[in-house]
Amino acid sequence: MHIIRTAHEMQALRRAMHGRVGAVYTMGALHEGHLALVAAARHAHDHVIASIFVNPTQFAAGEDFDKYPRDEQRDLELFAAAGVEAVFMPSPAEVYPTGFQTTIRLSGVTQGLEGARRPGHFDGVATVVAKLFNATSPHAAFFGQKDAQQVAVVRRMARDLNFPVDIVVVPTLRESDGLAMSSRNRYLTPAQRAAAAVVPRAMRAAVAAYGAGERETARLLELVRREISAEPLASLDYVSLNDPSTLLPSLDRLDGPALLSLTVQVGATHLLDNCLLPDSLNTQDGLTAVLGA
Amino acid sequence: MHIIRTAHEMQALRRAMHGRVGAVYTMGALHEGHLALVAAARHAHDHVIASIFVNPTQFAAGEDFDKYPRDEQRDLELFAAAGVEAVFMPSPAEVYPTGFQTTIRLSGVTQGLEGARRPGHFDGVATVVAKLFNATSPHAAFFGQKDAQQVAVVRRMARDLNFPVDIVVVPTLRESDGLAMSSRNRYLTPAQRAAAAVVPRAMRAAVAAYGAGERETARLLELVRREISAEPLASLDYVSLNDPSTLLPSLDRLDGPALLSLTVQVGATHLLDNCLLPDSLNTQDGLTAVLGA
Repeated sequence: MHIIRTAHEMQALRRAMHGRVGAVYTMGALHEGHLALVAAARHAHDHVIASIFVNPTQFAAGEDFDKYPRDEQRDLELFAAAGVEAVFMPSPAEVYPTGFQTTIRLSGVTQGLEGARRPGHFDGVATVVAKLFNATSPHAAFFGQKDAQQVAVVRRMARDLNFPVDIVVVPTLRESDGLAMSSRNRYLTPAQRAAAAVVPRAMRAAVAAYGAGERETARLLELVRREISAEPLASLDYVSLNDPSTLLPSLDRLDGPALLSLTVQVGATHLLDNCLLPDSLNTQDGLTAVLGA
Repeated sequence: MHIIRTAHEMQALRRAMHGRVGAVYTMGALHEGHLALVAAARHAHDHVIASIFVNPTQFAAGEDFDKYPRDEQRDLELFAAAGVEAVFMPSPAEVYPTGFQTTIRLSGVTQGLEGARRPGHFDGVATVVAKLFNATSPHAAFFGQKDAQQVAVVRRMARDLNFPVDIVVVPTLRESDGLAMSSRNRYLTPAQRAAAAVVPRAMRAAVAAYGAGERETARLLELVRREISAEPLASLDYVSLNDPSTLLPSLDRLDGPALLSLTVQVGATHLLDNCLLPDSLNTQDGLTAVLGA
């Protein structure tokens, strides 16, 4: 497995790859969700490039950039075992050299949800993903459903700027109690970890109600709020129903697929989760077709 | 010669080109300066792609977008005769479809000179050039020296976002009295056209003084101001000496290459011009090495 430190070397290696190339961009601290992205990429591509880069520009001051988990040796072993052919692992100074001054900003899809909670976050995401696209030139890039707004931002950016990259969305992998896998779960104490199960439980309540015919946005959101408020260690940042592509807030009554998303604070950790309604869309094909389509 | 209307078709045609590809991006209304870009591109490349697109997002309200000269039939004949292989000529709706919301912004190199005179102009330029890079994937893109700040913006953007495109700068072509060729020169009445010669005359005064040893920034700028003020039909928007790469204002005393640039209003037309000091740098190699390097 090649370990590449500069965009220049990455581009040279990429030019020597023939056939179809899939890419998986990560901040490291890998879990099974990341490896599911690699597996999906391998499935339809001759080569898989992965990246590890904890991107400082998508963390605001006071967020967890400094303590974000880093475990490069283990990450590389996991990527190698998963069949990754090259890992692009640039330094911050390689990605943002002296004099760097370019930002890619999206005006609509970044406005609510995590974009409202984390001002500037998606500027950092869009800019670094454009750089990763140019460094790795994949036919397709694989993203996890858990960061649904990120998917919508990346797909809109790719379309708006004519990057010839397919964006493929892979369903969220979950622990046995339903908690979405996340590198940040390791911040949780055992008590917090137990409390965190309220997040998927709250989503399931809304999914069940939707399955039973409930279409009133306010009622679905209220079900989620009630579940979260029953857990003393959890507090709701927000819960929202939105158009899965534009992320505009849903109308009072749902009349098509909707993205149910929420962020819940447990201790100092913000846990992010989402699902599409109807539940039948939460497959790779369904998500890829609907999220940002 | 292929005439291509969509980015998708352009990318398909591009993938079928083997060997090296040069690109020349224009707003049409071609003059010899544009054809010099094509000639430079042909010189070292197997294929030349040109584009014609009057980009609305780089015009502010009240500027000349609506009356910007358009002459597609003649432009296509000139490109064909010059050896262009494909012309990418998208509609505004193709470039900016409904829902478009992405802007590329640079924070330093866009701040002075034309960036100060035309707020938002270089956001429009950087964004559309990124789109053109992705639609045409050239090895090198050729730009005219006359838009020196545009060159600095495009090169900075290409570097910051890792576009693997060489930016080549071609010296400004001039009329017999020294006026830089420009599509906007056709806005001038005969009397204004005669008065416009004050622009290169003022630059030559500074170049001559520099050649005679003058290094004081204030004195060089004063020479230019004095020349312009002697022409009743002309008024100076600004004249400036800047670092050719960062575009930071020059120090009081020049101690390296500097970009002398000015914009002069004649009637309703803003005439843009510049040169590098020392004058010996105003060659394709010198400009390409220094502008934005």
